[in-house]
Formats: sequence, structure tokens, C-alpha cells
Amino acid sequence: MLTDIEISRQATPQPISDIAKKFGIKKDELSQFGDAKAKVKLSILDRVKDNVEGKLVIVTAVTPTPFGEGKTVTSIGLTQGLNAIGRKTCACIRQPSMGPVFGIKGGAAGGGYSQVIPMEEMNLHLTGDIHAVSSAHNLAAAAIDARLFHESRLPADEFTQQSGSTPLDIDPEQILWRRVVDHNERSLRNITVGLGDINGPVHASGFDITAASELMAILALSHDLKDMRKRIGRLVLALDKQAQPITAEMLGVAGAMTVIMSSAIEPTLMQTLTGDPCLIHAGPFANIAHGNSSIIADRIALKLADFVVTEGGFGSDMGFEKFCNIKVRESGKAPDAAVLVVTLKALKANSGIESKQDINLPDQARLEAGFLNLKWHMDNVSQYGVPVVVALNRFPSDTQEELEWLKREVMSAGAFGCEISDAFSLGANGAEALARKVVEATEQDSDFHLLYSSDASIEAKLLTIAESGYGARGIVLSDEAKAQLEQIKAMGLDNLAVCIAKTPLSISHDPLLKGVPQGFELPIAQLKINAGAGFITALVGKVMTMPGLGIKPGYLNIDINERDEIVGLA
Amino acid sequence: MLTDIEISRQATPQPISDIAKKFGIKKDELSQFGDAKAKVKLSILDRVKDNVEGKLVIVTAVTPTPFGEGKTVTSIGLTQGLNAIGRKTCACIRQPSMGPVFGIKGGAAGGGYSQVIPMEEMNLHLTGDIHAVSSAHNLAAAAIDARLFHESRLPADEFTQQSGSTPLDIDPEQILWRRVVDHNERSLRNITVGLGDINGPVHASGFDITAASELMAILALSHDLKDMRKRIGRLVLALDKQAQPITAEMLGVAGAMTVIMSSAIEPTLMQTLTGDPCLIHAGPFANIAHGNSSIIADRIALKLADFVVTEGGFGSDMGFEKFCNIKVRESGKAPDAAVLVVTLKALKANSGIESKQDINLPDQARLEAGFLNLKWHMDNVSQYGVPVVVALNRFPSDTQEELEWLKREVMSAGAFGCEISDAFSLGANGAEALARKVVEATEQDSDFHLLYSSDASIEAKLLTIAESGYGARGIVLSDEAKAQLEQIKAMGLDNLAVCIAKTPLSISHDPLLKGVPQGFELPIAQLKINAGAGFITALVGKVMTMPGLGIKPGYLNIDINERDEIVGLA
Repeated sequence: MLTDIEISRQATPQPISDIAKKFGIKKDELSQFGDAKAKVKLSILDRVKDNVEGKLVIVTAVTPTPFGEGKTVTSIGLTQGLNAIGRKTCACIRQPSMGPVFGIKGGAAGGGYSQVIPMEEMNLHLTGDIHAVSSAHNLAAAAIDARLFHESRLPADEFTQQSGSTPLDIDPEQILWRRVVDHNERSLRNITVGLGDINGPVHASGFDITAASELMAILALSHDLKDMRKRIGRLVLALDKQAQPITAEMLGVAGAMTVIMSSAIEPTLMQTLTGDPCLIHAGPFANIAHGNSSIIADRIALKLADFVVTEGGFGSDMGFEKFCNIKVRESGKAPDAAVLVVTLKALKANSGIESKQDINLPDQARLEAGFLNLKWHMDNVSQYGVPVVVALNRFPSDTQEELEWLKREVMSAGAFGCEISDAFSLGANGAEALARKVVEATEQDSDFHLLYSSDASIEAKLLTIAESGYGARGIVLSDEAKAQLEQIKAMGLDNLAVCIAKTPLSISHDPLLKGVPQGFELPIAQLKINAGAGFITALVGKVMTMPGLGIKPGYLNIDINERDEIVGLA
Repeated sequence: MLTDIEISRQATPQPISDIAKKFGIKKDELSQFGDAKAKVKLSILDRVKDNVEGKLVIVTAVTPTPFGEGKTVTSIGLTQGLNAIGRKTCACIRQPSMGPVFGIKGGAAGGGYSQVIPMEEMNLHLTGDIHAVSSAHNLAAAAIDARLFHESRLPADEFTQQSGSTPLDIDPEQILWRRVVDHNERSLRNITVGLGDINGPVHASGFDITAASELMAILALSHDLKDMRKRIGRLVLALDKQAQPITAEMLGVAGAMTVIMSSAIEPTLMQTLTGDPCLIHAGPFANIAHGNSSIIADRIALKLADFVVTEGGFGSDMGFEKFCNIKVRESGKAPDAAVLVVTLKALKANSGIESKQDINLPDQARLEAGFLNLKWHMDNVSQYGVPVVVALNRFPSDTQEELEWLKREVMSAGAFGCEISDAFSLGANGAEALARKVVEATEQDSDFHLLYSSDASIEAKLLTIAESGYGARGIVLSDEAKAQLEQIKAMGLDNLAVCIAKTPLSISHDPLLKGVPQGFELPIAQLKINAGAGFITALVGKVMTMPGLGIKPGYLNIDINERDEIVGLA
């Protein structure tokens, strides 16, 4: 079989204006970025506001493994399959970060015959939204330090006279706003800034990957530009020496940040290999951020399509939990069905059983042990009142016996449906059975409910997610987290949602605990106020908000060839 | 009169595809970015290779002052004026950096009735090229530190086995490659990175503004993508513990960097207020970098237009010197005429005479003293064998007497021509006289010559620029610079050009020396190897490669209004 980039390059994308037209987007609602990408203007929302909304399908997965479960392949394949059976469908997915693209695995545009094309445009700059987030984020960091610098060099009255602003008296030890870059940059995790006689004050800082920026969450959760402007104004950037919050509004930088972000608020239209519409928008990771594409893209797509397929990052404990408790809480649009992606290899790898045998070979013991992980994720999705269709993403080495066994187990465990997906190798045709089952699932009466109420305290919310969301027997707060909890209460922010940052490699906080970890307590190391995004981020265990490059990084393979084409993107 | 952004917004840009068509760019050579911007594919160069080349006009200025001389206003006005008198003309200018846009002065799209529109699109992300430069630059920084990290944690043989590469043994004290961000970020000038037990090794680093990135120079100087790939491979990122250079090629990151930059290599087509074509490409500052837009944009424009108007940043000692000695050396295309922009206010401010009188009022003493600065710049341009047309950029308060006096002085000092420009207030009509004079100037026999030969030693080149380029009586190298000079010789890089980084506020290295400084020695503090760009950068005096935000930064005024429009861009 051809590589992903070969398949992508062999396909001739249809003019994106044709895709838009077929999908119901008017010419003057589109800004083209080359022939294969276009931004969609938000003015469309007003025109289509009375349209009936389509059905919303969320794709999630079992606990991820190094083999790749093919969640995006399934999302794109399902979109292709639904269109193939006559249901007008749009995929809404996140923009890939250059961190993983150059660090680990290559792209995030799907794979095989279920891809968004052209994959190199999707995996690189797209239409610049992540760059806009980085730029707006780092302007705020520069503004904080410039204010510290100027206030430190002048008496208060002279500062006021020269600047036209009263001093903010920012505490350099209490700068909450770090910096961001869209790369895997271990060495920037913890840095000291302001060194040299004329660049101070000296203080600790550090970089997160842009996908973890609160501005990325704001991009994904805003309803329109005015809402984005208000959220940016609310960002808590630092504390003053009386421990009172300094917001972006108080620093006078919220307007400029919004201006930098203003082009990013429009989702980008691309297409699948079969010419189906796909809206790419925002890119928060699901481990260290809330892990779902934008509300704006979903809203546009739901007004134009019969079905919208979106996905939450990593396993259902990560992106799906946040999809429900953060995104749906904000958007008000509950999912009509969930697709839970699994592979035979993923079950074996999640079994917790060590084995030297080739993972592609049949192994009933590992399969049965690993099934418990799948079962846990099925139950997890079901507790939100969403019907679950399990998608068995087939690999060439899979035996019919194993697949049939698994399908029987899944159905007797109470799934609404279970279908084999050949989206990777066959594209739309390979996903038609899955598509039909998903349509059936969305025709059920829905009974969606959130896991916790906004009225509960932050501590109660953390406990609910730990217990009901992960099966923990409780939470343990570090001293730092306890102090931060008091601060949050004092600021009156108890009504915010909660976003857990933890390893995706286990349902627990410990990546070594495979299968269905039990009896563990969830260690809350740190709480971060994200008043603009509308949640408190809880850092759990040893999670880091900036990845590092591995010993054999992905960029080694990436280059241009003699025909000036890009090679090496997976 | 309306503000710049009001004038820009009142104008309805023509569809950029129409501008392209009129200019001779075919539909399939264009990638649209919205309705008002488009990237031009390099395939056009092959199609038009046998076209006769147009005339190249370089716009420069006297020593800059806080009042603004209006160089870009004059460049755009001249482009409008030349088109108005029937000469098909394209402007080729740099992309503005967000540092100044949010820091000081607002935009860099011209002003009044001589602007590139829409000015907010030009001044913000444009088509993402600066973001691409930042991203590629910082990937290399991440790659160096990741390599240091992994090599520091394993014995050499294990590292080789796991990574597939032999150790580079990078000296963490000799990392030459800093990081970049496109903001004014004083506190990131000098930082310590790699802090924490698992993020090391700890070492000094720092950020420059992206305009000073060697990759920005490479973007501006490359002939095509393959040339860019080669240059990126040659980048010297660090030294190993034997003081031998580590290049981007050796680190295996040159291909990926080129891939990130590959979209940026296409210039962006925009339009002036009168619908004339304008190619925006690359954005090196003229103080801390080489200060000129790209060779590729000029090449495309020269094959399609009768006249191409470009500009070098700051005074003729800065951007114009580098235009000749760096850009023309590389492109082989000499300028046919130079336009030297001056205002009455600039002369008074450059007079060196302190005065409390309103600078808008007539002041013959200051005018006469300031004229010496203008005369110096005229002579400076003339020494390259380029005919000089002085453009008197008129302000409303200017008296006819002063303007006429100045014109007489300019002509008797040997200028080819001198015209008043009303481009700011009248647009094309205000620049027609200037345009006619420029046409005449380009009809002269040209006698262009570079200031120094590539064969000269780096030290000799530095001395030539100091003496002939600035009127210094010599150079003084710091101990650090002397050691670096030895290193450069040892590496066999003596044949590179030289790029001086110094204050633009004086012809000398000292911003306080106004008028025509004499008898000074040029202090060379540091030399930086830019083997990819093809020059050695000499840091002169106290120049800094990262600006800082002022006490009343420009971003305070920038916001969106109730109609979601951008306000506050100057």
C-alpha cells in the first residue's frame, strides 16, 4: 500500500470553492487560502441561523498505545462513509501542532484512504491560526515584563505621568502567564528571564506548547469575536503584591491580543479524499488542555449538514470527558452518538500482560485482558447517556476469529452497535457499515447529562471526575494545590469547570497502570486559573505542559525532494 | 485629513486576481489568501525568463528622526505616480514586523493616500511568512538542545545505537544559534534555559526579534527553494568541544526547516490605494539585519514591470549600503536610480542644534546645519555610481521659501534631480513630478560599483564600510571580535560579505552624534557567522538584536470596535 503522503499527493483536490458551494457556503462567506483551503466567515452563522441542526457524533477511543488506534482515520472514514450512504456530513477536527508533526509521528490528517487533503498543508501552517495564538500569547508575556521593567525604574508618580497608567505593582514571583512555542522544547520548560543589567527584573518563566495555551482554549470555546474579546480581557496574567489578580484588561493588552487572534476565529474548510467537507479549527491537546475542536466550527457545520463528526483527543477519559463537561457545557449541543475506536493491537497492548510475542499474532489471553479496558471506556461513555457504537479499526494481520469474538463481547457488554472499519484501506466503502450503525444510534432518544453541576465547588468537581471519570477512590491535593484552591475560592471562581491535565497512557495518573486501574488516589499537584477559557486546570501527577523531542525525532526524515515536494511527513 | 486606517478602510480593494491579471500573472501562478492578498508561485520565473527586465529604483533616506521621513509613503507614492504617467510599475517592499506594529509606531504600509491596502492585513499576519521564519528558527534551537540532552544522558555507543547518529559533542557554552520571537521582548534578551533536573544541560540563551533571524536573511537572499535548502544546510548553529562548526545539515534538521519555510518563499501580492501591484516579501530590519526585501520578489517584478520601486531601511548608511553590498552582490541586478527622501523637519532634527522652537516653524540655521546630513547621504549614494533624485516629502506646515531654498541647495550639490512629493496628501498626483524625474534618472548610463570586493578579508571589508560607508577614521575590534575574526579565518569564511548592526540614529555608532559625525572610530563588539545568509554580521557599539517595549506601548490603543473592526493601527 502507498504511504499516507503518496496517497494524499496522488489525489487531486477539488477546488475548495466547489466543496464550499456543494456544502452550502456562499462565495462571499469564503476567504480562499490557495486552492485547497478556505476560511469561512462568521457572517454565515447569521444567514443559516434558522436551519435545522444536524446530528452530532463524537469519536473517542480506548486508552492509546504506541501502535496508533486510528481515531482520526475513523473520523474521516466515517465522514466519507456517511456521505457515501447519502447523509450530508462534515468532519470537524483540530489543527495539528508542529510539535508532534516534527517530533514524533508525523501528521494528524488521518491516514490511508481516509485523509484530509492536502495533508502537508494541514500538517504545517494551515491558515496560520496556531501562529496567531502563539503571537497573541507571547505579546501578553512581553507586556507583563515591560510593565514590570518600567514600573521598577521610576517612582510611582513619575511612572503614572509618563505612561498615563497607574502602577499595577505586579509581583515578579507571581507571574502566572508563561510563554508558548509550537514545538517540542524541553529546554524551555523552565527558564530564567530578564538577565543583564537593563532587561530585568530577573524572574522564573517557561514555555508551554501552544496547544496548551489558554488562548487556544478560548479560540475553541468562543461563540464569536466579542465573546473572545471578553474572555481575553478576563485572563488572569499575574498577581500583584497584595495577591490580587492582574488581568489582560488591566494591562491594556486584551484588545491587541484579540486583534492578533481575530483572523484565527474563522474555521478553515478543507476536504477529505472523497471531496467531503472538513472544518479544521483550534488545536488544544487532550492531555494538557481540553482536547476538542471549536464550538464555532461545529455550529457552522451543524447548520449545513445532516451529520457532524468530531473527535476528542486520546481515550474517553481524556478528550471525551472534556468534550462533555467543558465543550458541551459551553455550547449546549449534546452529542447524539459516540463512536469508540479500538484495534486488536490496542487491546493486547492495554492488557497489562507482558509478552515477547509479535503483537500482530493472535493472543486470546491478552485480548481478553485488554477487553476490560475497552469495556471501561464503553461504560464511561454510556454514563453520559450517549449511545456507543464501537468501531473495530481493522489491520491487515487481524484474524476474522479475533474480530468476531470481540464483536460478540462488545455487543453482549451493551454497546448499541459494533462494526469493523476498513476506512484506512478502503476509504468510504470501508466505513459504510459503521456509518449505517451510527445513523441508527443517532435515531435513539438522547439522554445526555453532564458529570457535574457548575454550582459544585472546584474540589467537589475534581472528586467527581476522579471517581466517576477515572474510577479513582479519591483525590490527594498537594500543599500547593490546597493553597491555590483557597485562592480560587477567594476570587469567586468556584463556578468554573475543571480541566484535568494528566497522562493519556492510563485511565489513572500513572502511565504504567494499564487496563483498568483501581484503588488509586488521584494526586492533584497544581491548579491553574483559566478564567478566560472558563475552567480551572488541574495538573495531575507528573504531567508536563511542554513535550520534549525524542532521541530519533521525526524531523530527521522530513525534507524537500528534487522536485521541490515535501517528503517524510508520515 | 483622515487617519491612515480610515483611508485604508474607505478604499475598496480590487480583487487581487484582477491586479494580478493586469500585471501579467496568470491565474495558475497565484494562490489567493482572501480577496486582497495572493502568493505568487515561483513557476512564473521560468515562464517570463526571456522578458526584458525593467528598471530598478531604490528608495533611501537621510538619518531617521522621531518625526518620520515617509520613506514607505514615498515608495508607494512613487509607484502610484509612475503608473499614473503610464509606466507599468510594481513596488517591492518588506513585510512589517509585529514588534514595531504593537510596540511603537503602528504599521509599515505607507500612509495617507500612498498606502498598501488593506493596511491591517499587511501589518498583522500577512500570509504567515514571518511566522514560518520564527517556527523554522526555533525548531533548530529545539533540535540543538534535544541533541545535547540525549547525548548527555547516554554513553556514546548507546547514543549511536538508539539514535542512529554519531555524537556531535556540542559545547553548551558555544551555541551560536539563539531563538526568535516577533515581538519587542526585552526580558528574553538574555535567559538561562534547561533548568530543572530533566531538562538540561543548563546554558545561556536568548531571543532576537525574528527580523534579525539569519533565516529571514536567507528568505530575502535565496534564488529558489533549492538554494534556500542549501543555505539552511550551511547554517552554523554551534561549535563542538573541539571548536569545530556544527551545521544544520549535521544536526539533520535542515530539511525540516526548509519544509517549514517552503510556503514563505512565495512573495505576497497586494495593491496600492490606486490598484498598483505591490509584492511584499521578507522583513529583515536595516539596523540589526540587512534591511531589504527579497531578491525573488524583485526578480518577478522586474520581468513584468517597466519599473520596480524598492527600499532599504533607515538612512543610506544602513539599508542602502546593504542593498548594494549584500543584495546586489547576490542578485547581480544594480539599481538604475536612487530616491533619497528628506523632510524639512528631518533636516532640523538632524542639525545637531538644540532648540525649544516648534520644529514645524521655519528655522534657517537648523535647516542649513541639517542640510549637511542630507548632503552626506547624497554623496554616499553617489559613490556607488547611482544617480540620486532627492524627494522632499512635504508636510502641511512647510513653507514654500524653505522648500525652494532646499531644492536649490540640493541641485547645486550635484543631485540628478529634486522634487517635492505630495504623495501623502494627494497620492499618485502628488508624486507625478517625482516620477517623471525618476524616469529621466534611470535613462542615464549607469556606473554602479560595490564598495568592496568579495576577495578582501573580513577585516578589510569592515574597514572599508567604516571609512567609505560612514566616514569613520578606523575600526576598533573588541577582544571578543578579534577572537571571532580568527575563527572566521580558520573556517575559511573570509570571502563572505559583511552586514553591520548599528544604531540607525546616527551615521556613526553613537546615536547622540547628529549631522555628519567625524573623527570617530567604529567599535566592533562582536562578529556573528551567517554562513547561510552569506555574510558576517558585525555588532557595532551597544546595538541590541531585540527591541524592548516602551513605557506607553502602541498596543494600548489597538482593539476591535463594536463593528468587529480593528482600530488603533497607526
